[in-house]
Amino acid sequence: MNNKLRVTVWNEYRHEPAEPRIAAVYPEGIHTAIADGLKNYGFAVRTATLDQPEHGLSEDVLANTDVLVWWSHIANHEVSDEIVERVQRRVLQGGMGLIVLHSACMAKVFQRLIGTTGDAKWREDANKERLWVVAPGHPIAAGVSEYIELPHEEMYGEHFDIPAPDELIFISWFQGGEVFRSGCCFNRGNGKIFYFRPGHEEHPTYFQPEIQKVLANACQWAAPSPSMHRPIRGNVAALEKIPGSV
Amino acid sequence: MNNKLRVTVWNEYRHEPAEPRIAAVYPEGIHTAIADGLKNYGFAVRTATLDQPEHGLSEDVLANTDVLVWWSHIANHEVSDEIVERVQRRVLQGGMGLIVLHSACMAKVFQRLIGTTGDAKWREDANKERLWVVAPGHPIAAGVSEYIELPHEEMYGEHFDIPAPDELIFISWFQGGEVFRSGCCFNRGNGKIFYFRPGHEEHPTYFQPEIQKVLANACQWAAPSPSMHRPIRGNVAALEKIPGSV
Amino acid sequence: MNNKLRVTVWNEYRHEPAEPRIAAVYPEGIHTAIADGLKNYGFAVRTATLDQPEHGLSEDVLANTDVLVWWSHIANHEVSDEIVERVQRRVLQGGMGLIVLHSACMAKVFQRLIGTTGDAKWREDANKERLWVVAPGHPIAAGVSEYIELPHEEMYGEHFDIPAPDELIFISWFQGGEVFRSGCCFNRGNGKIFYFRPGHEEHPTYFQPEIQKVLANACQWAAPSPSMHRPIRGNVAALEKIPGSV
Amino acid sequence: MNNKLRVTVWNEYRHEPAEPRIAAVYPEGIHTAIADGLKNYGFAVRTATLDQPEHGLSEDVLANTDVLVWWSHIANHEVSDEIVERVQRRVLQGGMGLIVLHSACMAKVFQRLIGTTGDAKWREDANKERLWVVAPGHPIAAGVSEYIELPHEEMYGEHFDIPAPDELIFISWFQGGEVFRSGCCFNRGNGKIFYFRPGHEEHPTYFQPEIQKVLANACQWAAPSPSMHRPIRGNVAALEKIPGSV
Repeated sequence: MNNKLRVTVWNEYRHEPAEPRIAAVYPEGIHTAIADGLKNYGFAVRTATLDQPEHGLSEDVLANTDVLVWWSHIANHEVSDEIVERVQRRVLQGGMGLIVLHSACMAKVFQRLIGTTGDAKWREDANKERLWVVAPGHPIAAGVSEYIELPHEEMYGEHFDIPAPDELIFISWFQGGEVFRSGCCFNRGNGKIFYFRPGHEEHPTYFQPEIQKVLANACQWAAPSPSMHRPIRGNVAALEKIPGSV
Repeated sequence: MNNKLRVTVWNEYRHEPAEPRIAAVYPEGIHTAIADGLKNYGFAVRTATLDQPEHGLSEDVLANTDVLVWWSHIANHEVSDEIVERVQRRVLQGGMGLIVLHSACMAKVFQRLIGTTGDAKWREDANKERLWVVAPGHPIAAGVSEYIELPHEEMYGEHFDIPAPDELIFISWFQGGEVFRSGCCFNRGNGKIFYFRPGHEEHPTYFQPEIQKVLANACQWAAPSPSMHRPIRGNVAALEKIPGSV
Repeated sequence: MNNKLRVTVWNEYRHEPAEPRIAAVYPEGIHTAIADGLKNYGFAVRTATLDQPEHGLSEDVLANTDVLVWWSHIANHEVSDEIVERVQRRVLQGGMGLIVLHSACMAKVFQRLIGTTGDAKWREDANKERLWVVAPGHPIAAGVSEYIELPHEEMYGEHFDIPAPDELIFISWFQGGEVFRSGCCFNRGNGKIFYFRPGHEEHPTYFQPEIQKVLANACQWAAPSPSMHRPIRGNVAALEKIPGSV
Repeated sequence: MNNKLRVTVWNEYRHEPAEPRIAAVYPEGIHTAIADGLKNYGFAVRTATLDQPEHGLSEDVLANTDVLVWWSHIANHEVSDEIVERVQRRVLQGGMGLIVLHSACMAKVFQRLIGTTGDAKWREDANKERLWVVAPGHPIAAGVSEYIELPHEEMYGEHFDIPAPDELIFISWFQGGEVFRSGCCFNRGNGKIFYFRPGHEEHPTYFQPEIQKVLANACQWAAPSPSMHRPIRGNVAALEKIPGSV
């Protein structure tokens, strides 16, 4: 894989410092666990968190990020609109990839890019989730068997308030009787977005190798092509001579 | 057709009062021309404009609107965020249909629902546009021949900054050498959205019967089903007994 | 609903005469049970079966069919290629709707229209299936609650070898741990196709009112518009004068 | 780019030997011109033609082909059904990529994989075609400016009888007043298919660097991942213990 790919892993980082049972699962924060998993794939990975200046997402950081990975939950509303718009612009114009994780389905940055609420059903019952691959030829599913099993996860159930994804990669089965579109690709502007459901803060999901593999595949898939042409907008002259015009 | 369908036609209504050459084309405003065309199809049609209180879009008006038709241009930025959010909510939750016309591709209400800028190339050269049907079996194309020809229209050219539409109905050919995805369906939440390109304020496009036919078809298509079930969200109990649980 | 809509329900009709336990469920054949359900919605319904001349699908029958409902299983390979091509042509050119049920995912007529095998996993264990609505605003889901529950059904599991459907309406949850894209819309040529998973011959699924409702909705959705324009093909003259040409 | 990618370029090779004016454009056949262009990108390229045994597409050749590029026209009907099924199987099961060129929109192998006729309008008038990029972030458009201009090409016009592509990359503008969906991605089974319109046998289109670039991008995109998991089919045991079962 391309070891030049620059990934920034963002985490609101509120549960871990405040709740010992969550710190026990992710002692250095969810962002660090995700970043470590991605480093093993040879990416250049850094992290950023909500309480840093500009939430750690300065213009400079974003300009040097190919793919932004985003985990958030209880502080979705604390993210400033200015940073939300900055991220949105960087996806639409710059083609930065965006990987949206778990409860970040209700992050403002995701809502702004998809146009819907991202809301769903949920239950914190720590039962089994099984993610079935429904697009086996897609690069995000490369190296994944016919399903991924997570012994303990929070449940998210349909109806999931998203636009129909441009490509649907995973559908989750939950022990309590629900299903969920849990791996969803969206193209927006010049950028690519992947929503991936797993990753409740109470479970060591991001240490599981298959989950790390999917995240690495997703970063590869979402990274902008260096030779992408930026569209031209605005007032333009005709390319053809109009019959009868001067 | 269903004569109970309630349509509200919204227009910023700024060009017509201010510019005589536009008033000459649409003496009673673009909204009135569109509304008259739709009335011929038996819908219950009213109009609303930017300078009315709440832009004419009170909670009550929206609650009694099945399909909102939206024309805007130079005053896109004057629409209040509160009303934008109200319209968005009514589409997502209430399933209200939304028909977005011409330069309203950059209306805040459309941008918020699609997540991109809606920006494109343009040229006010009053040349020919030909809209080719690419989905002949779709209800919005019913009664339309293989193309619609408009002798004088503003040009909009690709790249058009929209998500890939859920269904693409028309592609426009322009005399100056450009193409445009000019009839685009989007499903968002419980609602349906149709973007339709034609309708520059300087040309009598909305008086053309084929255009009126497409708008009537679009209203029929976008109207919510009266028996639609609203999704349930939030914390839910399991539907199945989990083996081993109490 | 439109009481003029002409529906033909086709069944291979091999299980019922041969197997008493299946005749006990569908004494007059699966086709009759489906037809009776649709008649309650005011459609003009007839039936046809494999062992009739031309499988009951003469050119005349098809020319007078708006929507063809198709159930088949063990005799998929006995359907003649000539009839398969006739049905395919009638869908592509004539815009006839096609509702493909259960094991007919491997019917030649469906395979020919989608290009893939329609193969999947399966298990005849008569456990619970729950079909979740993932497109609540779609007309096929009108009047359906957030899910449909079937107490005893055969299991079909992913990966289901279909192209990504143009619209995905239902996803099934199965008690044994599987999921399935169980309500899938495909547009092909001028026609519309809906695949609907339930309906194993050993269970009284087609007598269940919610299932009958979905089938009626699907017939309405798939019926061709009377004012649909048929595309023009072949060699054509230019619509524009080419600069410099004679 | 991956220099191990194995590409087979197939051509019916009937025009070139028979018609001097076409031989003047492609002295060694269209397949050789395409193959030479792809070799410059570092792929391992071979060619095959209709009149070779098994049309040059033995089981062994296909098993060692990652991407098959297909040009055909007047001899579409001469391709044996056995080879068509072999190619289809290799795409669906093996995940072989397939690049379908120009008049091969009516090749049996393409028709079988998409389910429709691939028919369209056409005119051999050697006028200008301009292919607009509508998905600038897609890997097939990498390195391509906002459009590609071909000074002399055959016209193909809508309606093009294909299913809505999974991703639409190019739309063509033609001088005579037509448009065409000229770069279309389809996922089928484990394989990826790209239809690319240009390449009439009378014009040196395949020598144009931008066209060669698109073909190289398409081969990269369509190649199967070496770590793709092949789906499991057929009768399977339950993954979960069913409550109440033995």
